[in-house]
Amino acid sequence: MKLKEIAQFANGELSGDGEIELSGVSELLTAKLTDLAFVLDVQHIPEISKSNASAFVIFKDLKFETSKPYILIGNPHLTFAKILTLFLNQDKFSPEIHSTAVLGKNVKFGKDVFIGAHSVIEDEVVIGDYTCIMSLSYVGRRVKIGKNSIIYPNVSVLRDIVIGNNVIIHSGTVIGSDGFGYAKDEVGKYNKIPQIGSVIIEDDVEIGSNVSIDRATLGKTLIKKGTKIDNLVQVAHNVIIGENVILAGQAGISGSVTVGNNVIIAGQVGIADHVNIKDNIIIAAQTGVSKDLEPNKIYFGTPAKEMGEAKRSLAEVSRLPKLYQKVKDLEKKISELSKDNKTSN
Amino acid sequence: MKLKEIAQFANGELSGDGEIELSGVSELLTAKLTDLAFVLDVQHIPEISKSNASAFVIFKDLKFETSKPYILIGNPHLTFAKILTLFLNQDKFSPEIHSTAVLGKNVKFGKDVFIGAHSVIEDEVVIGDYTCIMSLSYVGRRVKIGKNSIIYPNVSVLRDIVIGNNVIIHSGTVIGSDGFGYAKDEVGKYNKIPQIGSVIIEDDVEIGSNVSIDRATLGKTLIKKGTKIDNLVQVAHNVIIGENVILAGQAGISGSVTVGNNVIIAGQVGIADHVNIKDNIIIAAQTGVSKDLEPNKIYFGTPAKEMGEAKRSLAEVSRLPKLYQKVKDLEKKISELSKDNKTSN
Amino acid sequence: MKLKEIAQFANGELSGDGEIELSGVSELLTAKLTDLAFVLDVQHIPEISKSNASAFVIFKDLKFETSKPYILIGNPHLTFAKILTLFLNQDKFSPEIHSTAVLGKNVKFGKDVFIGAHSVIEDEVVIGDYTCIMSLSYVGRRVKIGKNSIIYPNVSVLRDIVIGNNVIIHSGTVIGSDGFGYAKDEVGKYNKIPQIGSVIIEDDVEIGSNVSIDRATLGKTLIKKGTKIDNLVQVAHNVIIGENVILAGQAGISGSVTVGNNVIIAGQVGIADHVNIKDNIIIAAQTGVSKDLEPNKIYFGTPAKEMGEAKRSLAEVSRLPKLYQKVKDLEKKISELSKDNKTSN
Repeated sequence: MKLKEIAQFANGELSGDGEIELSGVSELLTAKLTDLAFVLDVQHIPEISKSNASAFVIFKDLKFETSKPYILIGNPHLTFAKILTLFLNQDKFSPEIHSTAVLGKNVKFGKDVFIGAHSVIEDEVVIGDYTCIMSLSYVGRRVKIGKNSIIYPNVSVLRDIVIGNNVIIHSGTVIGSDGFGYAKDEVGKYNKIPQIGSVIIEDDVEIGSNVSIDRATLGKTLIKKGTKIDNLVQVAHNVIIGENVILAGQAGISGSVTVGNNVIIAGQVGIADHVNIKDNIIIAAQTGVSKDLEPNKIYFGTPAKEMGEAKRSLAEVSRLPKLYQKVKDLEKKISELSKDNKTSN
Repeated sequence: MKLKEIAQFANGELSGDGEIELSGVSELLTAKLTDLAFVLDVQHIPEISKSNASAFVIFKDLKFETSKPYILIGNPHLTFAKILTLFLNQDKFSPEIHSTAVLGKNVKFGKDVFIGAHSVIEDEVVIGDYTCIMSLSYVGRRVKIGKNSIIYPNVSVLRDIVIGNNVIIHSGTVIGSDGFGYAKDEVGKYNKIPQIGSVIIEDDVEIGSNVSIDRATLGKTLIKKGTKIDNLVQVAHNVIIGENVILAGQAGISGSVTVGNNVIIAGQVGIADHVNIKDNIIIAAQTGVSKDLEPNKIYFGTPAKEMGEAKRSLAEVSRLPKLYQKVKDLEKKISELSKDNKTSN
Repeated sequence: MKLKEIAQFANGELSGDGEIELSGVSELLTAKLTDLAFVLDVQHIPEISKSNASAFVIFKDLKFETSKPYILIGNPHLTFAKILTLFLNQDKFSPEIHSTAVLGKNVKFGKDVFIGAHSVIEDEVVIGDYTCIMSLSYVGRRVKIGKNSIIYPNVSVLRDIVIGNNVIIHSGTVIGSDGFGYAKDEVGKYNKIPQIGSVIIEDDVEIGSNVSIDRATLGKTLIKKGTKIDNLVQVAHNVIIGENVILAGQAGISGSVTVGNNVIIAGQVGIADHVNIKDNIIIAAQTGVSKDLEPNKIYFGTPAKEMGEAKRSLAEVSRLPKLYQKVKDLEKKISELSKDNKTSN
């Protein structure tokens, strides 16, 4: 691909020879001669002179020097994402229903679907145009999957799940395992509460690898449009996750929790059942939430506190040695004062 | 199904027209005209009048009004569980050994087993009556599985594991991966300790999705009767989990831990190796346990404290700003007293 | 196997009848008559007399009595590991490419490879001598796997991953899912940043079950030689893990973290993105690390503190009730002193 074509695609300002050909993108220090490399923040400027890349994409607000050709861009992260799409290895598989795929009755495929080797598609499944179900994945009875979605290998989508358009589900993930619900009887035995509900995954959702999303007891577990879920996340039954939510790695969302829109939940956060997380909340890593939180705020700690309060509290604990010393000093002074008083009295 | 049949099955007291037909169960607010809906606690009473359901199941201790037919029940959770079994989608697969299943030598099947598409059953496996091994699951050499058990798709049961009757194992789960054991040599290299032992899963155990249960170094990792394990839980080698234990999502149990009967371990709890958790203990979410705990108590925090103590400790930390202020005030007073004394002396 | 052969293999000192035959290894109390049992630490000495084992392996520094034959050994853990290799069930599968395996174009196999039933090997994969890909595993395009490695069932190795020699990957694990990277646009929508990079797993690495290791955005995620990873661990994109590192169960390593050599990261630890963990650090269970740490030290807590400081801090919090009482007492004394002063003045 020519540098001038990339500049045009990215709406960037080209400087230098636009005719050079680029075969890959790379980090600055590991770039080969045919690579394009990125300079999006100030820390990477010193690496420009050390890089073997033959051209750069540089954020226009940075000050730099180079004799090589480059493209100046605004909006660095978005433009970075855009340019990378040009270099993504062509792994879209050609439309095909592999001869080893096992298909149930009344399965409906849209146009140009890909159904990989040793995949299993049960009865009455509906799969939209251009959707790709990779090898060794399981799609249960009556599941509906929209258009342009990708199910990576070794995924399990159990019965009656509904998945939208442009959804990506990575390997090892399970959608629709039973919610964790039991009724204890008089002898202390747990009786399984059948999990009759479903899971709905709306459009533009991405779900990482080895994620577990349980089906609802009744009704549905719901992941709304544009939400992104990292690896090894637990989403329990009857949870509702809003739009454009970030759920980072190993976070755990207990049963019947509702999460608003534009919430960011960092890694290893745990949220207790039935808690209501309102819009625009940020929950820092490892936080444990057991009560409803106020919108538009940042929380941290177990139990969760508003970030300012959490930091003050940590600082107060850090200053305890001084407090102990001060109280000791006061004790001594008081003891002296007391003696003085006795003497003087 | 007729309402009067449901009333009879659930041992409930029918009020109104028992002849109406119900085709599903639902939450109150999303119910369709042919649905049965549940009113099991006081919060849901206001939703009765807004519900489209044509009949209700209502806990007999609640006060409510409705002109629709209903069934009064005691024991709400158990009866709820019981009624739902009537409406569970008929997903028991008809007995069949799918033509694409790969079967080893000397495999023994009980009657009416289901062996799904693209499953792999290795040599000398024994599978009991009515057990269902769904598609894409792996059952290793010499594994024994009892009667009426369900192995969901994409499960791995490695060699020599023993699984009882009425066991449910959800997708993505691994039973019998090697325990995490190494011997460090003189140059700092970790040498693998072969994991020769097994895993035994007793009757009536349910295991969620993406769970990892490791085989023992020697002997066995043991999950006793009636225990229920949620998603993404880690059970390390040589662990013994008692009867009727609850292990919630993302909990982690380290090597050689023993857990008594009727213990509840909440989400994201971690238990260090060789710790002994006695009967009837409850461990709250995200707690970190590094020492043996007393039976019949509730624990919280890292490191784990008895709940009352943990809460007092949190309250004490919350009151630190006041303590700092108070000490400052005392300092001032003492300084004044000291001046007074000097003056008066 | 004869006891004298085991003694010779283990470089141990035989005492008693070396001709007895042993068919298994076991824990002391559950040993059968044909078993060899181990006494490696002082706690197990009382079990010698209760054991049915017909011979023992005993650490030479222990004091004990038995009339049965035994082998005295030094270096107990290493020798234990060595002897167990003799008794590991012969589960190396005979070299075979199963007839149900699906092989892409231009796949290259070394000698004596095992490719299990229903596995899928995509185009241009290279697999070294004696390597075993078990059933139902997926190996993506252009993946390279070295010699003597074992991939357990239901593993997903996505495109372009490089795996070394003597690597073990347990079931349910995913190598090369996309890193979790998005660029937020002006309307708050997350745009996927294509993940173009790879993952490199060096020689002698073992990876547990249900682990997620993401591919890099650009460049590579790297796990260096001899590192051992437990179950359900998250390794995000562009992470570099050094040599001989221990990553215990459910630990989570965020994007672009670097970990030095000989580091031990305990269970459920979380490390924030871009943090630098230097050589020989030990991080205790459930610790949350958000800043770079000093080499050769032990850390604990969220946020992570050096262990001594963390313990002092916990002790200080535990002593708060006494501090509150002391301050109350001081208050009273001051109030009395103040009255005295007023009286005396």
